[in-house]
Amino acid sequence: MTDPRTTPGPHATEGPRPGRRPGGPDTRGEILDAARKTFADKGFTATSIRAVAREAGVDAALVHHYFDSKDSLFIESMALPVDPRQIAAAVLDGPRDEIGRRLATAFLEVWESADGQQRMRAILRSVVASDEVARAMREGITQLVLQPVSKALDVPDAELRVSLVATQLIGLAMVRYLIELEPVVSADLQILVDRLAPVLQHHLTG
Amino acid sequence: MTDPRTTPGPHATEGPRPGRRPGGPDTRGEILDAARKTFADKGFTATSIRAVAREAGVDAALVHHYFDSKDSLFIESMALPVDPRQIAAAVLDGPRDEIGRRLATAFLEVWESADGQQRMRAILRSVVASDEVARAMREGITQLVLQPVSKALDVPDAELRVSLVATQLIGLAMVRYLIELEPVVSADLQILVDRLAPVLQHHLTG
Repeated sequence: MTDPRTTPGPHATEGPRPGRRPGGPDTRGEILDAARKTFADKGFTATSIRAVAREAGVDAALVHHYFDSKDSLFIESMALPVDPRQIAAAVLDGPRDEIGRRLATAFLEVWESADGQQRMRAILRSVVASDEVARAMREGITQLVLQPVSKALDVPDAELRVSLVATQLIGLAMVRYLIELEPVVSADLQILVDRLAPVLQHHLTG
Repeated sequence: MTDPRTTPGPHATEGPRPGRRPGGPDTRGEILDAARKTFADKGFTATSIRAVAREAGVDAALVHHYFDSKDSLFIESMALPVDPRQIAAAVLDGPRDEIGRRLATAFLEVWESADGQQRMRAILRSVVASDEVARAMREGITQLVLQPVSKALDVPDAELRVSLVATQLIGLAMVRYLIELEPVVSADLQILVDRLAPVLQHHLTG
C-alpha cells in the first residue's frame, strides 16, 4: 500500500517547487493545519506568525491577511468553540460576589451546545493523549485567559486561585461529558450552577 | 499480512484444545488479563467471577483461589494503586466537619507516591481514551466507593454531593498531574490541602 499523501504525483518532477505558494483555494485551511502543527511542536509561546508561514510555505503577510493575530490563529487552529477571551471578559463584568455563578453558567453553556460539546470533548481527549497538545493548550490558555483574569481579579494568590478554578471546571467536564458519572450526567443545569457557584466563588475570592 | 494472533500455529490441529487449563506458572496473571478484558467488554456490574473464569479458560474455583471477590479482581486488574474502600473508610472515620481535609490529604497522598502517580495517570489516560474502560471504571468505583460513602454520609442529595466531590478531585489530578498547569503543579501539598478542604467539605455537607 502506498500513502497518497507522501507519494509524488505524476507531475512532481516537471518543474521546481515554489518555495512560497500564493493564496490557493484552501490556503486558509492549510495555514490552520500548519498552525496546529507548529503550536504542537513549539508550544504557544515560542510560535510566531512567521514560523506558521514557514511551515505552511506561504508569506507571513498572507497569514496576516487571514488571521489578525497569533491568538486568533490559536483559537481557530485548536478548534475552540468560543473565543475564551470574550467569555472571560463577560464573566469579569458584573458584581464581584457573583463571579462564581456567572462563570459556572458560561462554562456550562459552551459545553451544553452540540457543537461546543463535540469540540471541547475532542480537545480534552487530545490534551490527555498528547503531551505536545497539552503544552500548547496549557500555554495558550494561560496567556489568553488565566493571566489576564488573574491581573483583573486583584486578589492575593490570584494565579493559584484561577488555576484552582480550572481544576473544578475541568473535573466537571470530565465527569459530566467524558466519564459520564451519575448523577452529575443527568443533573439539571440550574442545580449544577447552584452547586458550583459557591465553590468557584470560594476558589476565586474566599 | 497475516495477524499472528488469529492465525493457527503449526500444531493447532494435532490434538484437542483443553477447555479448562489447570493452574500454570502465570495463571494469576492470565486471570487478571481475562478480568481486564471482561470488565471492559461487559462493564463492572455484568461481570461475574464465572465470566472471568470462562474468558481465562480456567475453572471458577481457581479464580476464587487467587481472588477473594469480584471487587478484588477489579482493584487488581485495573491496577489501582490502593484499595479505594480502605481510603473511603479512613476518610469517613473521624469528625464530620473535617472530612474534606481528610479526603484532600488521602487523595494527594496516593497521587504523590511515585508508583501511585504512574498508575493513576495510566488509569486516567485509558479512561479518557476508551469508552469501555470508562464504563468499567465508572461502574466499579460507583459500587465500591461512591454508593457506600453516599449511604454513610446520611445527608440529602448524598449521591450528587459525592459525585461533585469526584469532579473536584478528578480535575485536580488532571491539572496537577496531566495538563501540568502552573501554579497548581508546583504548589506545596499543604497549600493544596488548605485550598481544597473547604471546597470538598462544601460539596459534601455545605
